[in-house]
Amino acid sequence: MINIAILGFGVVGSGVAEVISENSDSLSEKLSGEEICVKYILDKRSFPEHALGNRVTMDFDMILNDPEVIVVVETMGGSHPAYEFSKRALEAGKNVVTSNKEVVANFGTELLSIARENNVNYLFEASVGGGIPIIRPMWQCLAANKIESVTGILNGTTNFILTKMISEGMDFEEALKLAQSLGYAEANPAADIEGIDTCRKICILASLAFGKTVLPENVHCEGISDITLEDMTAAEALGYSIKLLGRAENTDDGIYVITAPFLVGYDNPMAGVNDVYNAITVCGNAVGDIMFYGKGAGKLPTASAVVADIVDIARECKKNIIWSFSKDNPVTDYRSAKTRFFVRTEDPRAKEYFPGCVFCDSENGEYAFITDEDKESRLSERLTGFSVISKIRVL
Amino acid sequence: MINIAILGFGVVGSGVAEVISENSDSLSEKLSGEEICVKYILDKRSFPEHALGNRVTMDFDMILNDPEVIVVVETMGGSHPAYEFSKRALEAGKNVVTSNKEVVANFGTELLSIARENNVNYLFEASVGGGIPIIRPMWQCLAANKIESVTGILNGTTNFILTKMISEGMDFEEALKLAQSLGYAEANPAADIEGIDTCRKICILASLAFGKTVLPENVHCEGISDITLEDMTAAEALGYSIKLLGRAENTDDGIYVITAPFLVGYDNPMAGVNDVYNAITVCGNAVGDIMFYGKGAGKLPTASAVVADIVDIARECKKNIIWSFSKDNPVTDYRSAKTRFFVRTEDPRAKEYFPGCVFCDSENGEYAFITDEDKESRLSERLTGFSVISKIRVL
Repeated sequence: MINIAILGFGVVGSGVAEVISENSDSLSEKLSGEEICVKYILDKRSFPEHALGNRVTMDFDMILNDPEVIVVVETMGGSHPAYEFSKRALEAGKNVVTSNKEVVANFGTELLSIARENNVNYLFEASVGGGIPIIRPMWQCLAANKIESVTGILNGTTNFILTKMISEGMDFEEALKLAQSLGYAEANPAADIEGIDTCRKICILASLAFGKTVLPENVHCEGISDITLEDMTAAEALGYSIKLLGRAENTDDGIYVITAPFLVGYDNPMAGVNDVYNAITVCGNAVGDIMFYGKGAGKLPTASAVVADIVDIARECKKNIIWSFSKDNPVTDYRSAKTRFFVRTEDPRAKEYFPGCVFCDSENGEYAFITDEDKESRLSERLTGFSVISKIRVL
Repeated sequence: MINIAILGFGVVGSGVAEVISENSDSLSEKLSGEEICVKYILDKRSFPEHALGNRVTMDFDMILNDPEVIVVVETMGGSHPAYEFSKRALEAGKNVVTSNKEVVANFGTELLSIARENNVNYLFEASVGGGIPIIRPMWQCLAANKIESVTGILNGTTNFILTKMISEGMDFEEALKLAQSLGYAEANPAADIEGIDTCRKICILASLAFGKTVLPENVHCEGISDITLEDMTAAEALGYSIKLLGRAENTDDGIYVITAPFLVGYDNPMAGVNDVYNAITVCGNAVGDIMFYGKGAGKLPTASAVVADIVDIARECKKNIIWSFSKDNPVTDYRSAKTRFFVRTEDPRAKEYFPGCVFCDSENGEYAFITDEDKESRLSERLTGFSVISKIRVL
């Protein structure tokens, strides 16, 4: 019997209970007859109608002091008290599995270190890409590779908004309202549309890929609220889709990490990733580009990843994921990295200043073009003085 | 020191040595300082110029009797003596890692059983999808799911041929010659174009997904040599791409497995998988559809998967993959499964017999349409008497 405690019985937490109950026979088969049992649910609310209603407690210490609890599942969301509870559980010698990207991105290094000291696991497959297997494959299946870059569409809400804008001609505000009415975006959508959620996730992936602690506070982050339908139409005419990306690249100068909207060429399979879907492309020096695609959020997909981590622990696959414990910031200044810009302008001098670029004229005297590749800071200088309508990086 | 022996120093075998040497520092980091050392290479040829030339032997028993050899890497190809060598290595208590889909598909059940008895691993990530992580993610990351179906573009050569046909208007023979001249197709391309390679791979995936032994001899297999440019053009007009798929589905009647060309709608991301790329979509009851995409073959991608398996063993992640050892054939009659057909015909009666279908007329009095869903055997009966030009299943 693998006894677990679920902290936070919201969407993901109740999904975990549902997957365990729904697939109990196939899970037990995979665990050579062992069963996963939800012994406690920590929540301030009570769930008298739920089959597991009698497992609900408000007393975290009861969980901590019960030696039968092998795994603590943290699905509370938010930094506090999720971080403190995770820390105390690990210190008490319990494995912790989480879907909480905020905690992993900001406190992952410390929690992984505590897990190692206590010879337990801190696993977080569900923190990036919902049910898409990405943490474990990067750590394990791509172990033979030096990872060169990781690029992802990591937030379903913003991808849904961008898809609706271009496919149905909506403007940003309309598309956001639709996302809210369908329950994809929250009433306060800032964490999604300002890129904060994407930024946390690319920090987790970058830390894992390059073995160093990449913190959100060190990463340049732009959202999609300034993207207009006109940008998308002009980008489309040039053969590109606009996507909010998290991108991390291992360079000679350090780790280049950014969260921002990017133009993605139609020949890149990420350009075709629409609606609430996520996709993550990992480039390894032996394997080349590998893409993982699927629903990046939702109750059961996310719960599926949490339960897979529980199964890993139950199978005693006790090899902890690690990344560096160094406190140095490995992130380079994004302005010193090379990039290209998609530019919309009404300024006719652009054609002289950026010769050789393919220009796309629109009816109202506007131009759109894609610059040559140059340091971002130098490109910004070169564009100084132009009346730029919009300026978006190109992948 | 993790000592390994490589059996067969061809494309994949030499790639394994290259990845180990090229990425030795990052591998050693992942193995807490341990190094992987190629102690023996078994081959009939000698490689005097190669840095590892002095490790070459023709004596398999020397490898078998050396207690320092922890992992035997089987990259020989073909069934014999690869099967016998793998078996003897496992019986001698050595872990075996392979890229050999022919051996895994036909003898996997037995070899996995021998591995378990001897408390060692038989790992085969490289046997399907080259460097794309798929075996381990299905086994581990999707462990919380009941897998409902697996569908894959599993052979790069045939996907290249189909891509060239539609994108450059080549006929099948022209595209095959191009694939051969680029080294993608072998002089005798039967295993690829007749679907045999795809069939082996879908058998491995089906066995793993459903926990039962699915053997190639029990699976209906069609290749792409009958697909014409006209088929592809008519399919395109209806909004579909033609792909050679391996497909396995868990049904109430047993496991439905087939290898055949299928029409894939443009709204399915698999329709956009072109050239030598592979993609595998797994549908789990919690996670929904997950797609894995990348180069399905090639020296370094395949070697990358082999080395990941070696790293797994070195990390002592000793949880063997298993599937059923029952000798019963779990595969249902593919003709009793429901499907739809894309049909090209000159027979005007088709419009009466298949009312409600969308017909696409071509200039020369031909029709193309997609039937309603019905048992395959019944659809074939319903089409008896029609002069059918071609008939392809629709995903």
